[in-house]
Amino acid sequence: MIKVSIVGGTGYTGVELLRLLSVHPDVELTAITSRKEDGLPVADMFPSLRGKVNLAFSAPDKVDLTKCDVVFFATPHGVAMAQAPALLAAGVKVIDLAADFRLKDQATFEQWYKIPHTCPDLLEEAVYGLPELNREAVKNARLIANPGCYPTTMQLGFVPLLKANLIDASALIADAKSGVSGAGRKAEIGTLFSESSDNFKAYGVSGHRHTPETVAQLQRFTGLPVNLIFTPHLVPMIRGMHSTLYARLTTDISNEELQELFESTYKDAAFVDVMPFGSHPETRSTRGSNMLRLALHRPNNGNTLVILVVQDNLVKGASGQAIQCMNLMFGLHETLGLQQVALLP
Amino acid sequence: MIKVSIVGGTGYTGVELLRLLSVHPDVELTAITSRKEDGLPVADMFPSLRGKVNLAFSAPDKVDLTKCDVVFFATPHGVAMAQAPALLAAGVKVIDLAADFRLKDQATFEQWYKIPHTCPDLLEEAVYGLPELNREAVKNARLIANPGCYPTTMQLGFVPLLKANLIDASALIADAKSGVSGAGRKAEIGTLFSESSDNFKAYGVSGHRHTPETVAQLQRFTGLPVNLIFTPHLVPMIRGMHSTLYARLTTDISNEELQELFESTYKDAAFVDVMPFGSHPETRSTRGSNMLRLALHRPNNGNTLVILVVQDNLVKGASGQAIQCMNLMFGLHETLGLQQVALLP
Amino acid sequence: MIKVSIVGGTGYTGVELLRLLSVHPDVELTAITSRKEDGLPVADMFPSLRGKVNLAFSAPDKVDLTKCDVVFFATPHGVAMAQAPALLAAGVKVIDLAADFRLKDQATFEQWYKIPHTCPDLLEEAVYGLPELNREAVKNARLIANPGCYPTTMQLGFVPLLKANLIDASALIADAKSGVSGAGRKAEIGTLFSESSDNFKAYGVSGHRHTPETVAQLQRFTGLPVNLIFTPHLVPMIRGMHSTLYARLTTDISNEELQELFESTYKDAAFVDVMPFGSHPETRSTRGSNMLRLALHRPNNGNTLVILVVQDNLVKGASGQAIQCMNLMFGLHETLGLQQVALLP
Amino acid sequence: MIKVSIVGGTGYTGVELLRLLSVHPDVELTAITSRKEDGLPVADMFPSLRGKVNLAFSAPDKVDLTKCDVVFFATPHGVAMAQAPALLAAGVKVIDLAADFRLKDQATFEQWYKIPHTCPDLLEEAVYGLPELNREAVKNARLIANPGCYPTTMQLGFVPLLKANLIDASALIADAKSGVSGAGRKAEIGTLFSESSDNFKAYGVSGHRHTPETVAQLQRFTGLPVNLIFTPHLVPMIRGMHSTLYARLTTDISNEELQELFESTYKDAAFVDVMPFGSHPETRSTRGSNMLRLALHRPNNGNTLVILVVQDNLVKGASGQAIQCMNLMFGLHETLGLQQVALLP
Repeated sequence: MIKVSIVGGTGYTGVELLRLLSVHPDVELTAITSRKEDGLPVADMFPSLRGKVNLAFSAPDKVDLTKCDVVFFATPHGVAMAQAPALLAAGVKVIDLAADFRLKDQATFEQWYKIPHTCPDLLEEAVYGLPELNREAVKNARLIANPGCYPTTMQLGFVPLLKANLIDASALIADAKSGVSGAGRKAEIGTLFSESSDNFKAYGVSGHRHTPETVAQLQRFTGLPVNLIFTPHLVPMIRGMHSTLYARLTTDISNEELQELFESTYKDAAFVDVMPFGSHPETRSTRGSNMLRLALHRPNNGNTLVILVVQDNLVKGASGQAIQCMNLMFGLHETLGLQQVALLP
Repeated sequence: MIKVSIVGGTGYTGVELLRLLSVHPDVELTAITSRKEDGLPVADMFPSLRGKVNLAFSAPDKVDLTKCDVVFFATPHGVAMAQAPALLAAGVKVIDLAADFRLKDQATFEQWYKIPHTCPDLLEEAVYGLPELNREAVKNARLIANPGCYPTTMQLGFVPLLKANLIDASALIADAKSGVSGAGRKAEIGTLFSESSDNFKAYGVSGHRHTPETVAQLQRFTGLPVNLIFTPHLVPMIRGMHSTLYARLTTDISNEELQELFESTYKDAAFVDVMPFGSHPETRSTRGSNMLRLALHRPNNGNTLVILVVQDNLVKGASGQAIQCMNLMFGLHETLGLQQVALLP
Repeated sequence: MIKVSIVGGTGYTGVELLRLLSVHPDVELTAITSRKEDGLPVADMFPSLRGKVNLAFSAPDKVDLTKCDVVFFATPHGVAMAQAPALLAAGVKVIDLAADFRLKDQATFEQWYKIPHTCPDLLEEAVYGLPELNREAVKNARLIANPGCYPTTMQLGFVPLLKANLIDASALIADAKSGVSGAGRKAEIGTLFSESSDNFKAYGVSGHRHTPETVAQLQRFTGLPVNLIFTPHLVPMIRGMHSTLYARLTTDISNEELQELFESTYKDAAFVDVMPFGSHPETRSTRGSNMLRLALHRPNNGNTLVILVVQDNLVKGASGQAIQCMNLMFGLHETLGLQQVALLP
Repeated sequence: MIKVSIVGGTGYTGVELLRLLSVHPDVELTAITSRKEDGLPVADMFPSLRGKVNLAFSAPDKVDLTKCDVVFFATPHGVAMAQAPALLAAGVKVIDLAADFRLKDQATFEQWYKIPHTCPDLLEEAVYGLPELNREAVKNARLIANPGCYPTTMQLGFVPLLKANLIDASALIADAKSGVSGAGRKAEIGTLFSESSDNFKAYGVSGHRHTPETVAQLQRFTGLPVNLIFTPHLVPMIRGMHSTLYARLTTDISNEELQELFESTYKDAAFVDVMPFGSHPETRSTRGSNMLRLALHRPNNGNTLVILVVQDNLVKGASGQAIQCMNLMFGLHETLGLQQVALLP
């Protein structure tokens, strides 16, 4: 059994880790920390876990995390970078669900996250935890930077086309939509039910942290200079993410060849479902599951390709992907404990 | 492996059976019938099942259901009664998720369901599939009448009090609220998103089919004459049921004793969670899981007891409960394949 | 033109006052105060008001409210009682949408609201602003205690029956359901979209502030001792309130007579719609309008009467009712500026 | 008073016309037809109209529409074209909310709507009812083709830029999102609450009827050949439409100049609100009102311009716009009866 601790268990990625890990056959939950909730049984805060998780939250200073095999950080940006060095030194693997190690470039990190990076030495070693694009590196990683939710959809949609040099890398557009849980479990007016229900809006159109992450990764994975317009929107639903990607084809290629490209790219990817050409994937087909589904469209058979990508932002977009990385890091089957069928309706 | 077929797989209880059975370790899905959708891959209708269920729907006349071990009827009222006799004669167990065998009294059935009962001989044998109240009968059953969703909550809330003779059986009130999936997957204006979202209403206040079912069962389980006011309401949520039960205490009893009564009644019930006195269970704490949670309140320490009961109407209120019965009928552990943690948020 | 100011314009009752008053033909909006938002154009916070309200929020100390004709307090409990005496002394009428003057009994107020009452002298003079039950008093009032949202529905449903001595006043049950906007525009986790969407729960079952208010008013309006069980629930919708009232008939009376009682009681009430016996009013039929609709049911023709009452909690349950009072206080037609048709769908 | 009839009053655009026209100061509702609901009081179907609309539906053959001044067709495609000639001949003005007269080219109409056009003679005369772009023509029209909901947002967003020759007309992208009411009040599984709540998806990506309408109109208004990628999506909200428009700037121009272009274009448009550069308009800021709001963004100050456009699809996107046209056709002030403030929250 893998001994697992979670730092920061009171947010949505934390409770989602608990939902998934509590029934993972090879995991033993060891500790869940929370500065504020020390001593509170986890199931008192999240009654869905009654009878499933019997631990209480522990104050960070009351737990010796070095006795775990792996620590998940489901914390705000800045926490993992402070604790990772000591844990790694003690032989504990670290998976950060925040952004501390997502950007290789320290200056870019500090520009977008407005905090100094206290642990730049680890930036190069940190492995970007997107197994479909770098499974071998994940397997050998000590420190995982779990991808952002939006970037997961954009990379899995654009990379096959970029690698095959089929599209104009300087004219990528991603019009993306997320459920409200992506904003986290924080007391804020903007994400109150009465503010975000029966409503739709864009946000951060002039600049969002997931743009530099995605651009940097697209460049790393493909070697191409990339220009991306990324427009996130807020959908009145709890979970779910839908990215509508627009790419300009630069080559003469048939729809069948495009479909074949995606199917062959992801033929061994248990969690990427390439749907038939012209399908309209729905976010609910992934609700609560670790699946990402995508489909290609080519309006009017012109030179614009539209790629529709859906996932559950809390699973494949966060906690599920983190566990997928953990499985690989510990030599387990990638899908272990992640076989949940999406909840439909 | 238990060979399982589902008659009528295109509704919400059908797809929920598929979600749960597709990952049940002791089940082999054999056939899923649909008169209209013969030949259509199940996963084309429900993309959540892509990669999980590889069967196609079959027209009923193309399938030999007598080769199964058990057949679930996820059909409108009237279908199971037509097919059950032949299946039982062939040694196949039958679990009906509709109402065909819920009422022992043929006349009452025909009054409320407006169709003649074509199979009254089996009414007495049929076992009402509420394991928490009659587990032994379920174990030995050939034919299960799976309870209605509302009746499950009302019985599990009222029976302990009635059996202990603590409340006035002639003055029961159940103010119940259901998510919209309870209305089924039928093309109807009343349950369109634009009609039922951002809205709340009662329905069937002057008479609902679940009243006679509940009254008859309360009387069977307790031997007491019962009078029940049942008021169902429609909540703008997909899944979830919340019954607010009002009972008039006829005895001097402490809150501690009341709590102890419920805890001891359900101490062996894996799927009934008696929460601390004064709790407010939320429907989402059961979303996608087979748990029913309840809590007691006694406003002003007066003689009115309020019992709050929640469940997922499609799981403990329908398909999960049916599988729970199946497990018992086949000698499996009651909880097998039903350990899903509720999806929160 | 009536010169109107609003103290505390940043909450939901505040913005609802603005929506309604900005198009009221006899009102001139003079000032909207907010301690925090001094100088911010109101329409920057509420873009729905762009082009309709050109004022900016003012810090309270920058405004001379004594130059108004009437001041609405859309503030937390405790603010109006501090400012009302000076305003009244200056000849300004006061309408408090909070609870400061709802309870005649100071001790009861302090017990439930946990703050000392700083202005008990005005408690007796304050008029409870429920025009359908005390229109003449409202007309002559200087100080209005605008009713709570739940109490409005309970009183308009129970009072006709109590006054006619038809029901057991000691056994009233109100199972009530409110949209989330009733919780106000406050940054809190419990009313986040991701917490309250796709969910249903009761709250405050063991004690809610609207119980003492309703009991006291029922007693004032009817002279009867009253016992009430009140169970509020939270519905995943923005606006709307549905109270399901249960009363035990103590007399032999026909349904036609009951219906006639309600129709005659409210024949001159422009904002109370008595629907046909056996109807199921929907909250959305009142969305954005000042209408309250109700309908009677008598299950099984027994001795339990069920009264279904719906309203928009922010209009008839708060800001619309306050304006209705203002109209009466200034000799205007009661319905002026309140003729909005409900938004359906 | 203008005598108004509505043909087809049982859908969402019909009931929205009724909501708005029932309080329009210069309108007298004369008849509302429905083949199926002959004799049913309108307010029985739409209780929101109780006390506001006292008419019953009439079968079409029982009403003499030639006695009206104007007839609105809130019908499926194909109805208006059958009845318009006789009405026009009798001197009655006609406003069609469906697509019968939106496309000047008969072949294009028949290709996309799959029905023969029975009245091609009127195609040229019909005036496209988008007052902000052709107010004078609307004033003089006998026959109005009310624009589609999506096309309204796309034209008001793109036309100023195209007319000023600032963007590449061959590379327009519109990623648009609509509330579910856009699908109409039809019994269909796809728009059930349980199917479309807590879900997000694209639809019609490979071809949607609003593409040819928009392209044709953009070309008529600007004289430029246009290429448009249009991707509609379904949002789990009742009302509201958000179009995210992407255009490639072909000229060196400052953000201030771009903003000024929009502000000057719409300076006399009462229903178009140009928000400050970089704003994020929310659909709810238009809920129930006839306002369309838009804002410009220029990510990274690059050459891609993003225009965010919101409206209520049933008001400015349908019934409100139709009434706006009626006002102009009858010499009334354009805003008469259309001053509703959006419902927020």
